[in-house]
Amino acid sequence: MGVNQQVTAMNELLIRHAEPSDYQPIIAVLDDWWGGRRMTDMLPKLFFVHFRPTSFVAEHDGRIVGFVIGFVSQTFSEEAYIHFTGIHPEFRKKGLARALYERFFAAVGKRGCRTVRCVTSPVNKNSIAFHRRMGFSIEDSDMIVDGVPVVEGYDGKGEGRVLFCKCLNTGHS
Amino acid sequence: MGVNQQVTAMNELLIRHAEPSDYQPIIAVLDDWWGGRRMTDMLPKLFFVHFRPTSFVAEHDGRIVGFVIGFVSQTFSEEAYIHFTGIHPEFRKKGLARALYERFFAAVGKRGCRTVRCVTSPVNKNSIAFHRRMGFSIEDSDMIVDGVPVVEGYDGKGEGRVLFCKCLNTGHS
Repeated sequence: MGVNQQVTAMNELLIRHAEPSDYQPIIAVLDDWWGGRRMTDMLPKLFFVHFRPTSFVAEHDGRIVGFVIGFVSQTFSEEAYIHFTGIHPEFRKKGLARALYERFFAAVGKRGCRTVRCVTSPVNKNSIAFHRRMGFSIEDSDMIVDGVPVVEGYDGKGEGRVLFCKCLNTGHS
Repeated sequence: MGVNQQVTAMNELLIRHAEPSDYQPIIAVLDDWWGGRRMTDMLPKLFFVHFRPTSFVAEHDGRIVGFVIGFVSQTFSEEAYIHFTGIHPEFRKKGLARALYERFFAAVGKRGCRTVRCVTSPVNKNSIAFHRRMGFSIEDSDMIVDGVPVVEGYDGKGEGRVLFCKCLNTGHS
């Protein structure tokens, strides 16, 4: 898809804050978006209720086609964390995840955050490539899988994770 | 167990803030504490990293025997939410969950919260009874299961939940 088509596609999209009422339509399709992988346990409704200021959905013709769920760390006030991002399979490779992330960066930047962190499974090669394109660095680890540092058992036994970190531009450097 | 024994047992316990390093010992035993039910997907490490100010563990002889993980809502600044509570099977019915909850109430009360919410599965009868004893009310719903209002599909298809709410004593009423 060329640049002009990307711009056209993006113009038809509305990005707005996530609402509790967005949860049911999203959770109903979530496992399908992940090709059948069971993801729903990782996304309880609480994230749509209590982290609205920093969570966003993208709508196309009134249908949700993408979302990002994140929050400001309550331990480290200058850090933000992205917990979950999903894009409808037919709406991938259009810059939509980038647009959602940029909306998130702006929201948490306004709240004083200077760093954004997130993690992904080592099997999720698209996610790793996306975060690299978005300027995230990967935290070192003794274990390297397909050239990528993986923290073994980070989210429990057998649940290794790639740890990403990005410094936000503060505009005063 | 009598009151004196309860007091003795509680005196040997240390309740302190949860740390990221507490995650591995907890996640390793979590499913066992729940009688084999798979709970680990619901408790990613992020909760131990980013919600330290309002999350607590109880230690007995240097071993973690209970924990509560919660946060202040970022949508509703006067609301707090308890995401997960676990007690070692041998340390139940000793007032430990109550002590952890009271520590949480104090922490979020200091941060301006006046309400605490949480949810539980309708199958978890002990949790329902505990929250009632702790003064939580249950939100109404059209669906009643064993006399308890359940919000159908609250956390996704087949994942009905009982919704609890408690007003904190502010000391200025």
